[in-house]
Amino acid sequence: MNAVASKCRVCKGPAVIDLPRHNANFCAEHLLQLCRRQMSKAIDDHEMLSPTDRVLVAVSGGKDSLALWDMLIEAGYEADGLYIGLGIGDYSDESGGHVKRFADERGLALRVIDLRDDYGYDVPTAARATGRVPCSACGLSKRRLFDQAALEGGYDAVATGHNLDDEAAVLFGNSLRWDIDYLARQSPVLPATEGFPRKVKPLMRLTERETAAWCLVRGIDYLVEECPIAAGNRHLAYKAALNEIERQSPGSKSAFYLGFLERMAPLLADRSAAAAGELNDCARCGSPTTGEVCAFCRLIEKAAAHEPVPVDVLLRKKVLR
Amino acid sequence: MNAVASKCRVCKGPAVIDLPRHNANFCAEHLLQLCRRQMSKAIDDHEMLSPTDRVLVAVSGGKDSLALWDMLIEAGYEADGLYIGLGIGDYSDESGGHVKRFADERGLALRVIDLRDDYGYDVPTAARATGRVPCSACGLSKRRLFDQAALEGGYDAVATGHNLDDEAAVLFGNSLRWDIDYLARQSPVLPATEGFPRKVKPLMRLTERETAAWCLVRGIDYLVEECPIAAGNRHLAYKAALNEIERQSPGSKSAFYLGFLERMAPLLADRSAAAAGELNDCARCGSPTTGEVCAFCRLIEKAAAHEPVPVDVLLRKKVLR
Repeated sequence: MNAVASKCRVCKGPAVIDLPRHNANFCAEHLLQLCRRQMSKAIDDHEMLSPTDRVLVAVSGGKDSLALWDMLIEAGYEADGLYIGLGIGDYSDESGGHVKRFADERGLALRVIDLRDDYGYDVPTAARATGRVPCSACGLSKRRLFDQAALEGGYDAVATGHNLDDEAAVLFGNSLRWDIDYLARQSPVLPATEGFPRKVKPLMRLTERETAAWCLVRGIDYLVEECPIAAGNRHLAYKAALNEIERQSPGSKSAFYLGFLERMAPLLADRSAAAAGELNDCARCGSPTTGEVCAFCRLIEKAAAHEPVPVDVLLRKKVLR
Repeated sequence: MNAVASKCRVCKGPAVIDLPRHNANFCAEHLLQLCRRQMSKAIDDHEMLSPTDRVLVAVSGGKDSLALWDMLIEAGYEADGLYIGLGIGDYSDESGGHVKRFADERGLALRVIDLRDDYGYDVPTAARATGRVPCSACGLSKRRLFDQAALEGGYDAVATGHNLDDEAAVLFGNSLRWDIDYLARQSPVLPATEGFPRKVKPLMRLTERETAAWCLVRGIDYLVEECPIAAGNRHLAYKAALNEIERQSPGSKSAFYLGFLERMAPLLADRSAAAAGELNDCARCGSPTTGEVCAFCRLIEKAAAHEPVPVDVLLRKKVLR
């Protein structure tokens, strides 16, 4: 960095980060300002939250979800945390520790659910029991338990830490397959419907690098390690491909995701409504489902009956494949 | 390759190529059969050509266009070639030589247009004169001269050698920008309209590797070198990104392009018609244009008045940038 490049665009003070997509550098204070403004713009543009909403934040202990919780609290929202122990060995133990320390230090309300203690299974066991990729059982469990906790706790919305990189990678995957129904549903806000709370992604305009920088500047001690089971999955390959495009043409990633929301999503709005379809009550738990028994009840049935599978066994199998 | 992997899927004879997207290997004969079938399917599915059509093939001297010409002749089409000398230094001299030898050896009819001799400019000079990327002037010149030659020669269609990699990369670029009008027009066949011939891409289902293999097996001596000016352009970056995805998940590239044509293109059909818009006759040459003077006449005016720029000067500038 030369002398010119290392000055904050706003105050000309020493910069701590360069953001090629904004063609600028920022000092710590103005990086925080940029993050606040991007979250605020996301919330306003997509009518995610009103100031008096009670928000349940899905926290994993990583940079995105802890930054989100911090930013929502700082912005004045009433925001409680929900952490789900997934049983992914040391990774889960450590992630839980980060979340609890974050909440304790700030006096925030945190609810903890443990898949093994509360539902009799964990993600590695569910993966083995279903014979599907672990991310499938993990995503299903999290979606369901966040929804349920939000409804039971009377929250207005569930907020997740999905950032611009996440959303762009999911969009890329859906585009590669031209899965029209998935494309039609890809929105940073899903309104509440019968049996489902509103779901919002306030960090959709911020990159991974920006949420990490928020945490560093704010002194948030997040878990840097990524989920060991997710390593090598397609989502990460899509991220890598988009990162290479972004490196060559800064701004491409946000143009891809925001351009989709602006120009393509409206053309698919009809499909989005049609894709919702008819829902019944699950015969076991009463949750909305397209079948007779919901996918979560079917997952519990299989996974809780299976002998526990330590994460190391799953990872060894992956290496051997 | 082990013993099992090196057998042709069809005849179990020794294989000459592995095609991961087909999860199979092929001997020379059955590779040709696969190529013929893919071209035939493309032509049939998209109603590109009828058996009695007179076709003008746009040939560059590279693997795709020479393979296309060869395959069309072999399939019984009446297909003449058109080569355009773009004035890109040694690259153009060599590419022209490959095309002429190919036509001579087979007794095929080849028409040659030279931008410098016939229109008073070349691609490097046009790039400098217009201040835009060379690929812009090159594409405009080729499109126009192919169209014009087809109409003047009474051909039913212009066929170009665009392959699956080309089409997928263009689609990726259009998706990254969500350029809805470009997406709506992205079709392997454009029907004839007032002032424009039908345009078809019979190799849209074949990869670069497959067209190269066709040439090798058939003994076609094509120019291996890529255009020196195009090196580093975005199109090549999009190809590289898709190649990496394809490496990790064979079949992704064709699923991306063919899935678009099957599921997304129909949703954009209205936009395609609307995007066509009103056309006038160019005040100078009479060709259809949205303005008063067409883009090609404006290009000639600027480029032919400019002092000739050797390609080396353009390439040096690129390196220095």
